[in-house]
Amino acid sequence: MAENFEIVERVGVSSVSISDAIKSAVFGARKERPVAWFEVIQQRGRVADNGDLEYQVTVKVGRKLG
Amino acid sequence: MAENFEIVERVGVSSVSISDAIKSAVFGARKERPVAWFEVIQQRGRVADNGDLEYQVTVKVGRKLG
Amino acid sequence: MAENFEIVERVGVSSVSISDAIKSAVFGARKERPVAWFEVIQQRGRVADNGDLEYQVTVKVGRKLG
Amino acid sequence: MAENFEIVERVGVSSVSISDAIKSAVFGARKERPVAWFEVIQQRGRVADNGDLEYQVTVKVGRKLG
Amino acid sequence: MAENFEIVERVGVSSVSISDAIKSAVFGARKERPVAWFEVIQQRGRVADNGDLEYQVTVKVGRKLG
Amino acid sequence: MAENFEIVERVGVSSVSISDAIKSAVFGARKERPVAWFEVIQQRGRVADNGDLEYQVTVKVGRKLG
Amino acid sequence: MAENFEIVERVGVSSVSISDAIKSAVFGARKERPVAWFEVIQQRGRVADNGDLEYQVTVKVGRKLG
Amino acid sequence: MAENFEIVERVGVSSVSISDAIKSAVFGARKERPVAWFEVIQQRGRVADNGDLEYQVTVKVGRKLG
Amino acid sequence: MAENFEIVERVGVSSVSISDAIKSAVFGARKERPVAWFEVIQQRGRVADNGDLEYQVTVKVGRKLG
Amino acid sequence: MAENFEIVERVGVSSVSISDAIKSAVFGARKERPVAWFEVIQQRGRVADNGDLEYQVTVKVGRKLG
Amino acid sequence: MAENFEIVERVGVSSVSISDAIKSAVFGARKERPVAWFEVIQQRGRVADNGDLEYQVTVKVGRKLG
Amino acid sequence: MAENFEIVERVGVSSVSISDAIKSAVFGARKERPVAWFEVIQQRGRVADNGDLEYQVTVKVGRKLG
Repeated sequence: MAENFEIVERVGVSSVSISDAIKSAVFGARKERPVAWFEVIQQRGRVADNGDLEYQVTVKVGRKLG
Repeated sequence: MAENFEIVERVGVSSVSISDAIKSAVFGARKERPVAWFEVIQQRGRVADNGDLEYQVTVKVGRKLG
Repeated sequence: MAENFEIVERVGVSSVSISDAIKSAVFGARKERPVAWFEVIQQRGRVADNGDLEYQVTVKVGRKLG
Repeated sequence: MAENFEIVERVGVSSVSISDAIKSAVFGARKERPVAWFEVIQQRGRVADNGDLEYQVTVKVGRKLG
Repeated sequence: MAENFEIVERVGVSSVSISDAIKSAVFGARKERPVAWFEVIQQRGRVADNGDLEYQVTVKVGRKLG
Repeated sequence: MAENFEIVERVGVSSVSISDAIKSAVFGARKERPVAWFEVIQQRGRVADNGDLEYQVTVKVGRKLG
Repeated sequence: MAENFEIVERVGVSSVSISDAIKSAVFGARKERPVAWFEVIQQRGRVADNGDLEYQVTVKVGRKLG
Repeated sequence: MAENFEIVERVGVSSVSISDAIKSAVFGARKERPVAWFEVIQQRGRVADNGDLEYQVTVKVGRKLG
Repeated sequence: MAENFEIVERVGVSSVSISDAIKSAVFGARKERPVAWFEVIQQRGRVADNGDLEYQVTVKVGRKLG
Repeated sequence: MAENFEIVERVGVSSVSISDAIKSAVFGARKERPVAWFEVIQQRGRVADNGDLEYQVTVKVGRKLG
Repeated sequence: MAENFEIVERVGVSSVSISDAIKSAVFGARKERPVAWFEVIQQRGRVADNGDLEYQVTVKVGRKLG
Repeated sequence: MAENFEIVERVGVSSVSISDAIKSAVFGARKERPVAWFEVIQQRGRVADNGDLEYQVTVKVGRKLG
């Protein structure tokens, strides 16, 4: 039987940019297993106390098993 | 790089109520890591042998990593 | 509190058939914990170098916890 | 050929609770044929004349055929 | 237990207009049981041999039970 | 021209129950204008400091204009 | 910072036609602020006492702010 | 007024293949009325006691009315 | 290998009616290849300078290849 | 009864970047009431006369009520 | 600026199997340009005059440009 | 009959940023016909060999016909 992948869902948080939040989620998931692909699922955020935006980006990450 | 969260998907089962099934899923997920938020995704069920409803509620649970 | 299930997302890959890709994903997930049910979420693929289709099938797998 | 199921869509109405509306839909569907499973599809309602909420819950019900 | 409704899905066909196709589906469903509401789900069609459009409109129809 | 309705989106919060959160959203929206109907859109929540669940329920509310 | 728009959701009701219900919703929303665009979201209705269809059409309306 | 169709939802079950489960659902629905078209809506399943997969495929079936 | 179809996406624009916008999209797509079926995907519009509505209707059109 | 939130839908426009369009929508909505969270719903745009992209980003904004 | 892909939508038809319909759609699309990936979007069909099923499978096909 | 538009689906790839991938898709589509609008549909990517993210952004592009 052929190779398998798992898909895990992560939320990256960044006060800098959406890209930074994506990177945070992807590189966090990559610490445990090689990342084959990712897909941005949701882009949310809040206004921080200093008036800056904080981005919370949900990313599905495909990782090779075995 | 900023804090990350993982989102795991759990199904809680209860013959008492939908609320009880949600709690079962959330508190089960909380045993392993602190739960930051949850979202009810699907509410299913079956009729048990004694005629009572059994609720099966799918919940996405956000948990803080690291 | 009643029994819980976890739902994990897997991608099975097969150059034989969609069924074979589903089986690969489900039996891979079953190595770690008993599988209660599965649901096919997405059917993708690519044309391999020899002209055959390679199927990549995403499956959600429900597994009993505890 | 193997066993089949039909899925019918019902709306239960209750001025007591969402659970009561679900039960009304499921037990109504069960009068005609055994119910194998149900899934809550939509939760709507209105404010009744006495100020109470009236719940209208749409449920898909799976019933065994033959 | 309170009143219930069933939701049935019908496709009305008309070479005149979308409205005519909706009416065909709703009034057909009304012959068997009183219609409480309807919702247009899908609007498809084809080009008939004489070059006119033929409309095929899918409608969900809510009907009072009992 | 005939009567119109507006649809507003509200989130009710309750530490008691989902029903209580729905009521909070609907009765809040009703203070400004008569409520014709409502629909539950999303059920989220968090674990409060005392370990209780806090429910955050998003409701679309239809209100009669003019 | 550049211009903004708000999107409001309205339901137009008409016993004449779907077009008439759309116009009712759009022109109602236009009384308060200039309408930049609209999108039809849902087409529902009921059978009125005289046997005619009453159309209830939900429309999202984009209006220029400031 | 022109011809109408009804859409019914069926679940076919097979331990052989997805195709066999589709056929089971379609041919079951065809016993009562001519089938004009079908659409596969959901592909689920479980691992049977002997380790084989059992496929449960939900199919919407369009049937010509009277 | 059997016959194939392509699906192209077109937007018809009309200041007369939704039907007229659908016809515009379908007959435009038919100039190049025979149209087997169409499906209305989205109904948008704007208020023209003279106060009339302009309809912009997105249609998926199935056309026979080869 | 507990605290409530309203969700309003805004479109921010920017010829600089998607982030700038999000900020425009969020800070516009914040002028009237405190913003608790936001979610990016749709990212559209057009090619401006000078060949630059103009971004039109739809954002749902949650605001605390009274 | 980097490489681009186009996504075209095709419907493969086969009286043999779903796999055969997918192959028909993918290999048809491959005659014009190299296929990078495909995704199965919809599985429909009809009962042919001889009682066999005819499968109509909609596939999105990604093809490398330039 | 009024003006028509076509909607084509493109994937832009960039190792620099999401914006750069969008621009790549839009300006590629603009080489053949004037672009009236675009909409971002999906944001995926992979981790390149050097550890950088490669963004693959799917964009629907509306182009004026005739």
